[in-house]
Amino acid sequence: MFYHVKELQYRAKPERPDPVYAKKLQEILGGQFGEISVAMQYLFQGWNTSRGLEKYRDLLMDTGTEELAHIEMLSTMIARLLDKAPVKDQEHAAKNPVIEAIMGGMNPQHAIVSGLGAMPVNSVGVPWNAGYIVASGNLLADFRANLNAESQGRLQAVRLYEMTEDRGVKDMLSWLIARDTAHQNQWMAAIAELEAQEGRVVPNTFPRELQKQEVAYAFMNLSAGEESSTGRWASGKSMDSMGVFQYVQHPVPFAKKPTIPPAPPSLHNTPPMLK
Amino acid sequence: MFYHVKELQYRAKPERPDPVYAKKLQEILGGQFGEISVAMQYLFQGWNTSRGLEKYRDLLMDTGTEELAHIEMLSTMIARLLDKAPVKDQEHAAKNPVIEAIMGGMNPQHAIVSGLGAMPVNSVGVPWNAGYIVASGNLLADFRANLNAESQGRLQAVRLYEMTEDRGVKDMLSWLIARDTAHQNQWMAAIAELEAQEGRVVPNTFPRELQKQEVAYAFMNLSAGEESSTGRWASGKSMDSMGVFQYVQHPVPFAKKPTIPPAPPSLHNTPPMLK
Amino acid sequence: MFYHVKELQYRAKPERPDPVYAKKLQEILGGQFGEISVAMQYLFQGWNTSRGLEKYRDLLMDTGTEELAHIEMLSTMIARLLDKAPVKDQEHAAKNPVIEAIMGGMNPQHAIVSGLGAMPVNSVGVPWNAGYIVASGNLLADFRANLNAESQGRLQAVRLYEMTEDRGVKDMLSWLIARDTAHQNQWMAAIAELEAQEGRVVPNTFPRELQKQEVAYAFMNLSAGEESSTGRWASGKSMDSMGVFQYVQHPVPFAKKPTIPPAPPSLHNTPPMLK
Amino acid sequence: MFYHVKELQYRAKPERPDPVYAKKLQEILGGQFGEISVAMQYLFQGWNTSRGLEKYRDLLMDTGTEELAHIEMLSTMIARLLDKAPVKDQEHAAKNPVIEAIMGGMNPQHAIVSGLGAMPVNSVGVPWNAGYIVASGNLLADFRANLNAESQGRLQAVRLYEMTEDRGVKDMLSWLIARDTAHQNQWMAAIAELEAQEGRVVPNTFPRELQKQEVAYAFMNLSAGEESSTGRWASGKSMDSMGVFQYVQHPVPFAKKPTIPPAPPSLHNTPPMLK
Amino acid sequence: MFYHVKELQYRAKPERPDPVYAKKLQEILGGQFGEISVAMQYLFQGWNTSRGLEKYRDLLMDTGTEELAHIEMLSTMIARLLDKAPVKDQEHAAKNPVIEAIMGGMNPQHAIVSGLGAMPVNSVGVPWNAGYIVASGNLLADFRANLNAESQGRLQAVRLYEMTEDRGVKDMLSWLIARDTAHQNQWMAAIAELEAQEGRVVPNTFPRELQKQEVAYAFMNLSAGEESSTGRWASGKSMDSMGVFQYVQHPVPFAKKPTIPPAPPSLHNTPPMLK
Amino acid sequence: MFYHVKELQYRAKPERPDPVYAKKLQEILGGQFGEISVAMQYLFQGWNTSRGLEKYRDLLMDTGTEELAHIEMLSTMIARLLDKAPVKDQEHAAKNPVIEAIMGGMNPQHAIVSGLGAMPVNSVGVPWNAGYIVASGNLLADFRANLNAESQGRLQAVRLYEMTEDRGVKDMLSWLIARDTAHQNQWMAAIAELEAQEGRVVPNTFPRELQKQEVAYAFMNLSAGEESSTGRWASGKSMDSMGVFQYVQHPVPFAKKPTIPPAPPSLHNTPPMLK
Repeated sequence: MFYHVKELQYRAKPERPDPVYAKKLQEILGGQFGEISVAMQYLFQGWNTSRGLEKYRDLLMDTGTEELAHIEMLSTMIARLLDKAPVKDQEHAAKNPVIEAIMGGMNPQHAIVSGLGAMPVNSVGVPWNAGYIVASGNLLADFRANLNAESQGRLQAVRLYEMTEDRGVKDMLSWLIARDTAHQNQWMAAIAELEAQEGRVVPNTFPRELQKQEVAYAFMNLSAGEESSTGRWASGKSMDSMGVFQYVQHPVPFAKKPTIPPAPPSLHNTPPMLK
Repeated sequence: MFYHVKELQYRAKPERPDPVYAKKLQEILGGQFGEISVAMQYLFQGWNTSRGLEKYRDLLMDTGTEELAHIEMLSTMIARLLDKAPVKDQEHAAKNPVIEAIMGGMNPQHAIVSGLGAMPVNSVGVPWNAGYIVASGNLLADFRANLNAESQGRLQAVRLYEMTEDRGVKDMLSWLIARDTAHQNQWMAAIAELEAQEGRVVPNTFPRELQKQEVAYAFMNLSAGEESSTGRWASGKSMDSMGVFQYVQHPVPFAKKPTIPPAPPSLHNTPPMLK
Repeated sequence: MFYHVKELQYRAKPERPDPVYAKKLQEILGGQFGEISVAMQYLFQGWNTSRGLEKYRDLLMDTGTEELAHIEMLSTMIARLLDKAPVKDQEHAAKNPVIEAIMGGMNPQHAIVSGLGAMPVNSVGVPWNAGYIVASGNLLADFRANLNAESQGRLQAVRLYEMTEDRGVKDMLSWLIARDTAHQNQWMAAIAELEAQEGRVVPNTFPRELQKQEVAYAFMNLSAGEESSTGRWASGKSMDSMGVFQYVQHPVPFAKKPTIPPAPPSLHNTPPMLK
Repeated sequence: MFYHVKELQYRAKPERPDPVYAKKLQEILGGQFGEISVAMQYLFQGWNTSRGLEKYRDLLMDTGTEELAHIEMLSTMIARLLDKAPVKDQEHAAKNPVIEAIMGGMNPQHAIVSGLGAMPVNSVGVPWNAGYIVASGNLLADFRANLNAESQGRLQAVRLYEMTEDRGVKDMLSWLIARDTAHQNQWMAAIAELEAQEGRVVPNTFPRELQKQEVAYAFMNLSAGEESSTGRWASGKSMDSMGVFQYVQHPVPFAKKPTIPPAPPSLHNTPPMLK
Repeated sequence: MFYHVKELQYRAKPERPDPVYAKKLQEILGGQFGEISVAMQYLFQGWNTSRGLEKYRDLLMDTGTEELAHIEMLSTMIARLLDKAPVKDQEHAAKNPVIEAIMGGMNPQHAIVSGLGAMPVNSVGVPWNAGYIVASGNLLADFRANLNAESQGRLQAVRLYEMTEDRGVKDMLSWLIARDTAHQNQWMAAIAELEAQEGRVVPNTFPRELQKQEVAYAFMNLSAGEESSTGRWASGKSMDSMGVFQYVQHPVPFAKKPTIPPAPPSLHNTPPMLK
Repeated sequence: MFYHVKELQYRAKPERPDPVYAKKLQEILGGQFGEISVAMQYLFQGWNTSRGLEKYRDLLMDTGTEELAHIEMLSTMIARLLDKAPVKDQEHAAKNPVIEAIMGGMNPQHAIVSGLGAMPVNSVGVPWNAGYIVASGNLLADFRANLNAESQGRLQAVRLYEMTEDRGVKDMLSWLIARDTAHQNQWMAAIAELEAQEGRVVPNTFPRELQKQEVAYAFMNLSAGEESSTGRWASGKSMDSMGVFQYVQHPVPFAKKPTIPPAPPSLHNTPPMLK
């Protein structure tokens, strides 16, 4: 169960309106790696974490709850960036076509649909969808998803930081960027804990002898050229310490040409040719 | 540019048809972490990798090209599992309602739409979409995405392995599971290489002093209860070696209640109340 | 069964082309509350209305059929607004970068995909989808959906009216806005009729004693601050006349911490920790 | 900013596992009118509510925060309903094909993807998306959206109540159904308040004379048959008290056949025929 | 503008309810090639057809209007197939688990969401979306889209015909299948007319010398094996009579390895390696 | 199984960067008829083609493999067009607002998400999804889908050719346009082969007498006006040579008004009215 306080976790006040930038900032609110994604991902992971793993459940609920606050900060910032957007003054625009042109960079839904409010969409206006997130029940897998999300998310926040001169926006982003640093570190720590217990390959509970061991550490050189042969992945002990990397220079098929049986006549597929 | 040979990378032949299992197997073909996702993700990352990073570009193209072969193996397996699916024999079904009921677990599109062929959809029939993947231009971020994809993908393949007794299906899955082991190791190796060069926080090129350092290593206890205080993430040196984890037991807001300015009258929002 | 006449229900002729506005106008054609949504919503509701409710079925089919005419009007208007869009003259553009910039506000698909025709998409180009609409079989619920759709739809049409100086566009919009007034009134009337028969809570056929009566009229103050305590919803007789509003100033959980049982080993979730 | 406590708002404990019902229950978690929809809708409406409307902002934040607790209750219930789902025992299934068949009614992703956890998807497995919700800046419009959502939501919860005999599930649903009663009443109260101030047509700030008054209260009989002429919407004073309903028995087009100008040759549309 | 009559174009009455078949039949209502697709596709093509092409515009409006009647027939049939679906009787089901199991094949939304009505979704419950259709402004291109839609649509209707023994359903399908025959013939006729005027390659207005003529009739043998060399496409006069088919047995790249320039530092991509 | 070589099938090098055009060019990479669509469509068709149809399977694999090379060419071209995009220099922009305005036409995700790389999205940024494609098992149906895709695809490529003056872009497009000519011819040839064997109506294996022959060649004049009566489809021998086209000037319903039975009380639909 949740409680809300009206104060923001950190201030979200631009120096001045900038509706074109508001459109861009939507990416880290409602985009693939935006705050809605991380909030929903961590909360669902937390709710699905079973008895005996309370430490991780708490970790997830703590962090998911913080991400709700970040959704709130970004929604506030976007609404303020949209303030005074010239959504009507066509005549004025006619007098200043350059302003008109710049305003063409707004998301028109910010005027038509949301009345200058934030929306749960990305920077091109595609609505957020739950296909972005994962909660698998395997925490090591999921913490890797979380580290990925915080890495992509911080990268996007940094890029947005570079794309504005507004000190208020930069101030808020420098908060979010720091929290992403904290969260990257946190998921790395949780991953390290689990890897120490379980080993590094997910899932670790599948008997190793049931996989084809002969290709479990092989690298397949399927794109001509051998630049890839010089990487850490091409030789030496494998990262899970259970094998040795091999570089397969000329990978060949292990199987024959497949054939697919014809479907029954009731499906009216093309029948096999007579000849 | 690509070339195709008709042979499969590894055989994909079930002992017997099983159209209900075919539906489930679609998850690792056309689902969020299926083979289409990894193929497209690695290829787009490869195509977007710039001059001076040829080693990684080659790594990505090698692996993306292999994943195309896995799409092919799964498509072949699914088509064979669908062989002889009782899509017509209603009368027979009436005589054996249990078989009819079991067949109710098929994806009906496998009969109506694809004529007993594989489809680019997941195990509930939702079409694959490119919102599942990422290619950011930052390789450390992207290799984390790749490690995540291979972790979730192997987990799903292992679960599917447990859900069948068909030795042909298990044989193919034990190949794919081994390749996922190889790929998890490979992305871990590539990550280790980049982290050794760049440090562990993505992106590493953003000046640290521009983030709010005071919260860059803090853990916010926003869900009541303190199980999370015992984790590696709550104390000690941070994973990036640049700070010390702090556990904030009672996190408070850093900002005031925000207010949003009223929109201009031309948007016909609710105006502020008189009283 | 339907018949079509070539005449428009009302004229849809702009004074002059305006491809940037055409993009915006797509919102009320193919957006969440556009004409495709109301047409499909009313028709599906009509087709699903059962025997004994012919009056409402007719109401729905009358109105759904009109909305098809509005799709047609908007498609016509958008095609005309796109007339002479400068999709080619790059050299000219180079001479007049401001025009080029303004044209950057066009939806590029209006040139590349539809050849200057209207599309079933919203103002940012996201295709219409049927997840926008509802037909539940409960007419009171659905008429509320319809009143909502006409309210949002009229709001958007009014905002678009404010965003143009073109008298032809305004003329058409003033027709659509009037029809939205009519339709809001109509659904209010139908709602009043049903509420008079059934009561105001949907569905009214569920025995009241089967719901937790103790919280059926309670307001939970879960966001700090008590501005909400002054509203009509916080005290007095409830709107359905069946209870009395209560304001719960400090809502507390009614249940304990939940625990989730561990999944079976065959799913390879993280197992409970030993310690 | 939000705080979380581990206790549930109300208990969510089934008498026994039922993975097929878990699939169905997903509808009111991640469907069009599920708890994710109302939580996100109310929170975004709250964040976008401007200065001078604090009472409504608080109302929205109070209710949106409660809906987060309902997401949590449903996620917990679904995870418990999935407990002991027979995801592996194929041999056992072979011995009891009826159980196997019934299990065919599970969502396969509950095993393959989420490891027996809840997912942000609906009862057929389609991921939640933000195209379901609205926050327009006009509160009367939005409160109608909210009343609609609570009406559809309660209807679905009631139907799900009828579809199970599990007393634990029914107990939780009777809580949610009661809260939906409360929320329907609450939005009706808020609507009544705003209508009293503003009038009943949304938006009320658009000058009435700018709409085509001659059709602002007309009902168009566009589907043959006149059952609809007997309704409240066909005669008498309009619901907004500003007009009189008219029934147009034989509606005719007000405009001529439109013509669309040919596109420029650079678009390579079909050119007008010579003859 | 449209008019509706209450009579169906053709009867849509099953012999008996069959809710599992109702789910399947949704494919040709709300699937990729269902009746919603063809109705919307033809109407949008019609509305976008310009002056001077009235014959084709009329053809499109005639046919699109008919497809609206087919949506209505299918919606009616589906609602009737859903009649008496055992959505409640759990106890009864417990007594007859086979019936329960068969009913597990229903789309649960037919009970929970639509109250036993048809929905604008496909046979797995994915909502219809406008990304399925096209209206390009080039009629030859679009008539090919239409011929494709009627071919896939008839194929699906025929498969569904095979999947039922219900004489009422078969009766309706034999109507729709006949209309698909008519429509396939019709689009073939329209295509023949346009090809006679324009030639067979779309668009025909692009100067042939501006394409790389040297590969405009070449077949690239990029998948090992030469079965494809025996087809009509591998030798002889091309179908547009403007060239001669060539079979390129060993296709090679025409270009060099590409390199991608590094992004500016402000994007924080991985920089080129020092070594 | 696939092999990759680093060389491009054809060069993809613009004369100069043009990030606004890069956004537009995305349409034929990740749009409905872009290269991802044709690659996936042909490969899935190939994998689903059964034994005895090797010639067509090879044809599909040859062509699908080529389309992978086109995805690569377009990704390369887009990355190069994005080179030096002014994603940071706000101050510079302030000095040159026209450049700023033109840059507003970029897809912001090209900076924020992909770091100046290509994305699997269309020209408005909507992600590619597999609902665009089809593989039905009936080759004649599918080859019509393919001819349609190559027609729409060539049309879009030609339009994009007209929208740039960059000789490097035009050079690459003239390659793709030529290949689309080749592919249109190829699918026409394959269609001709199959039609010669099977007849022209898909599927040809459904007994003609099972369709309502009386309407299998009728044209329904459902949109007022008779321009359509002059077309090839309105009279004469049908295109399949099996019937004669008839023009039905005044089409009437063949069935009665339908009624839908009321749902059981447990669904809480609106019950039939008493009066």
